[in-house]
Amino acid sequence: MINITFPDGKVRQYESGITAMEIAKSISEGLAKKILVADYNDKMIDLSLPLSEDGTIKLFTWDDAKGKNTFWHSSAHLMAEAVESMFPGVKFWVGPPIDHGFYYDMDLGGQQITEDDLVKLEEKMNELAKQNNAYIRSEIAKKDAVNYFYEKNDPYKLDLLHNLEDGNITFYKQGNFTDLCRGPHIPHTGHIKAIKLTNIAGAYWKGDEKNKQLTRIYGVTFPNAKLLEQHLTCWKKQKKRDHRKLGKELGIYTMNDDVGQGLILWMPNGAIIIEELEKLAKETEEAAGYKRVLTPHIAKENLYLTSGHLPYYADSMYPPMELDGTRYYLKAMNCPHHHKIFDAEPHSYKDMPLRLAEYGTCYRYEQSGELFGLMRVRCLHMNDAHIYCSKEQFAQEFKAVNAMYLKYFEIFGIEKYVMRLSLHDPEKLGQKYVNEPELWKETEELVRSVLIETGVPFVEVKGEGAFYGPKIDVQIWSAIGREFTLATNQVDFAQPRSFGLTFTNQHNEQEIPLIIHRAPLGTHERFIGFLIEHYAGKFPLWLAPLQVKILPISDKFLDYCKEIQSTLKSNHIRVEIDDRAEKIGKKIRDTELSRTPYMLIVGEKEMNENAVSLRIQGKGDQGMISITQLINEMIDLIQNRRG
Amino acid sequence: MINITFPDGKVRQYESGITAMEIAKSISEGLAKKILVADYNDKMIDLSLPLSEDGTIKLFTWDDAKGKNTFWHSSAHLMAEAVESMFPGVKFWVGPPIDHGFYYDMDLGGQQITEDDLVKLEEKMNELAKQNNAYIRSEIAKKDAVNYFYEKNDPYKLDLLHNLEDGNITFYKQGNFTDLCRGPHIPHTGHIKAIKLTNIAGAYWKGDEKNKQLTRIYGVTFPNAKLLEQHLTCWKKQKKRDHRKLGKELGIYTMNDDVGQGLILWMPNGAIIIEELEKLAKETEEAAGYKRVLTPHIAKENLYLTSGHLPYYADSMYPPMELDGTRYYLKAMNCPHHHKIFDAEPHSYKDMPLRLAEYGTCYRYEQSGELFGLMRVRCLHMNDAHIYCSKEQFAQEFKAVNAMYLKYFEIFGIEKYVMRLSLHDPEKLGQKYVNEPELWKETEELVRSVLIETGVPFVEVKGEGAFYGPKIDVQIWSAIGREFTLATNQVDFAQPRSFGLTFTNQHNEQEIPLIIHRAPLGTHERFIGFLIEHYAGKFPLWLAPLQVKILPISDKFLDYCKEIQSTLKSNHIRVEIDDRAEKIGKKIRDTELSRTPYMLIVGEKEMNENAVSLRIQGKGDQGMISITQLINEMIDLIQNRRG
Repeated sequence: MINITFPDGKVRQYESGITAMEIAKSISEGLAKKILVADYNDKMIDLSLPLSEDGTIKLFTWDDAKGKNTFWHSSAHLMAEAVESMFPGVKFWVGPPIDHGFYYDMDLGGQQITEDDLVKLEEKMNELAKQNNAYIRSEIAKKDAVNYFYEKNDPYKLDLLHNLEDGNITFYKQGNFTDLCRGPHIPHTGHIKAIKLTNIAGAYWKGDEKNKQLTRIYGVTFPNAKLLEQHLTCWKKQKKRDHRKLGKELGIYTMNDDVGQGLILWMPNGAIIIEELEKLAKETEEAAGYKRVLTPHIAKENLYLTSGHLPYYADSMYPPMELDGTRYYLKAMNCPHHHKIFDAEPHSYKDMPLRLAEYGTCYRYEQSGELFGLMRVRCLHMNDAHIYCSKEQFAQEFKAVNAMYLKYFEIFGIEKYVMRLSLHDPEKLGQKYVNEPELWKETEELVRSVLIETGVPFVEVKGEGAFYGPKIDVQIWSAIGREFTLATNQVDFAQPRSFGLTFTNQHNEQEIPLIIHRAPLGTHERFIGFLIEHYAGKFPLWLAPLQVKILPISDKFLDYCKEIQSTLKSNHIRVEIDDRAEKIGKKIRDTELSRTPYMLIVGEKEMNENAVSLRIQGKGDQGMISITQLINEMIDLIQNRRG
Repeated sequence: MINITFPDGKVRQYESGITAMEIAKSISEGLAKKILVADYNDKMIDLSLPLSEDGTIKLFTWDDAKGKNTFWHSSAHLMAEAVESMFPGVKFWVGPPIDHGFYYDMDLGGQQITEDDLVKLEEKMNELAKQNNAYIRSEIAKKDAVNYFYEKNDPYKLDLLHNLEDGNITFYKQGNFTDLCRGPHIPHTGHIKAIKLTNIAGAYWKGDEKNKQLTRIYGVTFPNAKLLEQHLTCWKKQKKRDHRKLGKELGIYTMNDDVGQGLILWMPNGAIIIEELEKLAKETEEAAGYKRVLTPHIAKENLYLTSGHLPYYADSMYPPMELDGTRYYLKAMNCPHHHKIFDAEPHSYKDMPLRLAEYGTCYRYEQSGELFGLMRVRCLHMNDAHIYCSKEQFAQEFKAVNAMYLKYFEIFGIEKYVMRLSLHDPEKLGQKYVNEPELWKETEELVRSVLIETGVPFVEVKGEGAFYGPKIDVQIWSAIGREFTLATNQVDFAQPRSFGLTFTNQHNEQEIPLIIHRAPLGTHERFIGFLIEHYAGKFPLWLAPLQVKILPISDKFLDYCKEIQSTLKSNHIRVEIDDRAEKIGKKIRDTELSRTPYMLIVGEKEMNENAVSLRIQGKGDQGMISITQLINEMIDLIQNRRG
């Protein structure tokens, strides 16, 4: 008999050799029908795997992220089976699940695939799914695996096999399709009841421009038709809001091949949004007692050896510039620079907590295949700060950081969010995690209690903390329910040690501070990408690049319009006049389409009464309003960021 | 006979073989006594050189920059003579004139030199100067020159000889000292009447840290004792204001070896000054119709090949980062990035002029020997902008840029300034200057007429324009008369062509714009360095990192002080309380010393009347004032930057 522990702490005894599916059945038939995959002793497993030792089990359904991921990964195999049946000789590279669905990269060996083929593939997949074919795992010796793919003349899987060792190689087979795969998978194809292949794209092998371009097919699947329908509705909305499309239309950003991939050129409208966000952050941080600093974008190699980022993080950094025997790196993070500023002067407990903030621009070399609009870039303007504090001050500081997050969520109308608290794994102390068991326990408990106290929704994840302390990732959902990872918030007790940072405490002793790394607005790149989609380009008044458009009914009123424009401008309101010789109806339609929040319509009556007729984006006609009242109302909305 | 043309255009005939000194004598004995060096057909010459062809002559005295430079260069030779007499076996590297004086780098072969030796050297120099030794030029064959320094066992001059060719090698001898030197020199040592050796420093050979460290002796000399005395008075003042000393004391900036030389870490007080300057620039530029952009700090090699900066400017850039076969460079200028933003959308005449502004951070690899506090750095925050305009719009735009300079001069109390208008040299069209003779003439005339029209003091310099158009360098003088080069302002008709930039003009044709490059505040680094010295660290109210210090007479008034603090803070005034248990007299003295502009003294009487006693830095006691009046007055001063 073995002891199986459940997430609620209860323990049951089962015969050795029992499977996760059988355990589910022992609980209820309903659960057994729904479960897709399991976690056993922190390892993801197939439901059919016999269990022979004591352990902790978690059962996942479609409602769990891990259930969805496995569902989509198995769907990628199903798609591959369909592709192979329609395009014989196709070679496959990798087919992972992604945020919403999955893809598979493949070499079609010169065969062309079209949008029409996608429909045929969907039909084929539906046909295969209905066969309820089981996903069958088999362990295989490396030489047999190599032989199998050598016979199939498949250089891609042979390449993957290079990095695998005997004893760790498994094949999965469903129907007529066999794939090299670590698994796990869902029990059988019958779970896949609704299928949509969404896109065909090119993707360089291993994301390297110098390699062959493969064909990538994207798809998404669901356990029922209703979920697919919901997804497609959301996706259509999403497509209209795509930040890459709107970012171009609205003159927010551009990229250029001569500058480089993933390097954003912020155009005037983008720069306005950036400055408004920075203004918000600076005001908020000033009120919270932060001090601003400014640091260079490069540093010598030695700085990153001290911080521990090199050589560990080198792959994500631009390569060094070498001159006169010195290596300079573009910074991928601001912390080491801030530590040097902390260290430039002696500190006493009276200076603590010291909060150093900077909109520092960092550079990270994401693989070109990973780059995606504003969401994955190589140049990141981070809303960064580092809080140096004593252990006693930590809870208070962490709470204040949390409050700042909540304030921002309110301003931006972010209603759904969750914090992921990533903890250390006691078994990996000294390897993956700095070996300070007491500090880990203490800070994790401090963070947890702040989260509970403030009533913020959060989940805990073991074994995903940063090297130097527990970490919080903030997930937010846009107005149409799309999920984004916004920012992280980390506790650090390792870097203050490696940089030799101290302050003199009340007992006149040198004490090592704790550090909180925090970036509530994340990076400009990702956050503005999110905001474009969240607002569908219809920015609130305070954030809109152009806030007001004045629409004269005819040229007669142009001088009066210019007066209004100049009054608004002197109140720092961003305003233009539509002086085209167009009918007022067309001017209104064009301004609506351009997503400008305020429209001021001016004719005889308005001019005579020193007023305008106001239309607000999305709210329509607001009637006549005097210039004075208009300005007062606008200033109030803008200053309080309520519109 | 030859024809000699004078700067006023007059032509006189002289015997062939006449010298510049004889020409000066032919004008007046007074002039002959004063002149130090001459320019003949755009080449600097000794006064004793026989002239045998027609030409244009300029005669320089101490009052001309070129006169001073030659005077100091000859003084370096005089110092070398004195050093050689006191330290036999010394080897010399180079001894150029600098901003105020000269230095000579030397290898003392293990001998030590002390401050006391400087006094002895001064005595020796005075003794040698009184001998009225002539500086005698001789042309020498390369092999003889090599032989001479080989016999002297002098590796430094032998190294210099590598780069010289036969026919271009000259020696200069005065008294017992002979040096390899291009010249020219002043006629004789008797002109040098007042001497001060100011400093001994170490300097790596060729500015390279890996080379041997040489000894550098700095000095300054004058044609009379009174000028030396004035200089020393100014220099003492200057020393107290040294931005490196004050920059540290006031917590403005720091540097760190792990980050790198010449890379400034701006501390909280420095960041405040930077943000105030940016705010000023943004407000000013917004009012002048500029649009802001934000661009990455790197770009691919190709961008700089298009702009023409590579390979020409490569020595001043950090070396490339090479990855996946692509070379990325840290940007040394913002213009190419801005051109790409201009080019991201089509433009019509209605968009023009388009003014793109950015506080872009550029990186330039200055030699480590050249680095100097904030004045010569490797990381530059530039108050940059590029104005794209039609030829018709140019004069108006250029005038507006000029007006902006004058506005800034007024705000910062810069009373002495001059603009250096650098023009092209028609003989070097197509080589040093883009081959557009008509555009050169036209734009130079446009720039000149704007300068004349606005009544700005300016001088013209032929043959110092940028490659792509005429250039204005702005020289300013600090409160104690120290000269700085602040900024440049350039016209560019080459880059719009190489980047293929166009706009659609009124005739529906594609027209190439002109570009004005301008940076009225220069870089933060240099400008803040200037301001620290200009204000001796006593910044005006609007710019001071800490604006107000509240000084309670005793603890009893602390709560009231906190109320005042909170009221001031809510008005965005930077304020602290001195809550130490010190006597009020000491608090006042300490605050004066810390250079805080406003002191609010609070006791019984002040608290009862909801007031404070005000002391202003440099102005002393201002009597009692109500909180409301104080805030109103301060806001007015700050917003208008009048205090």
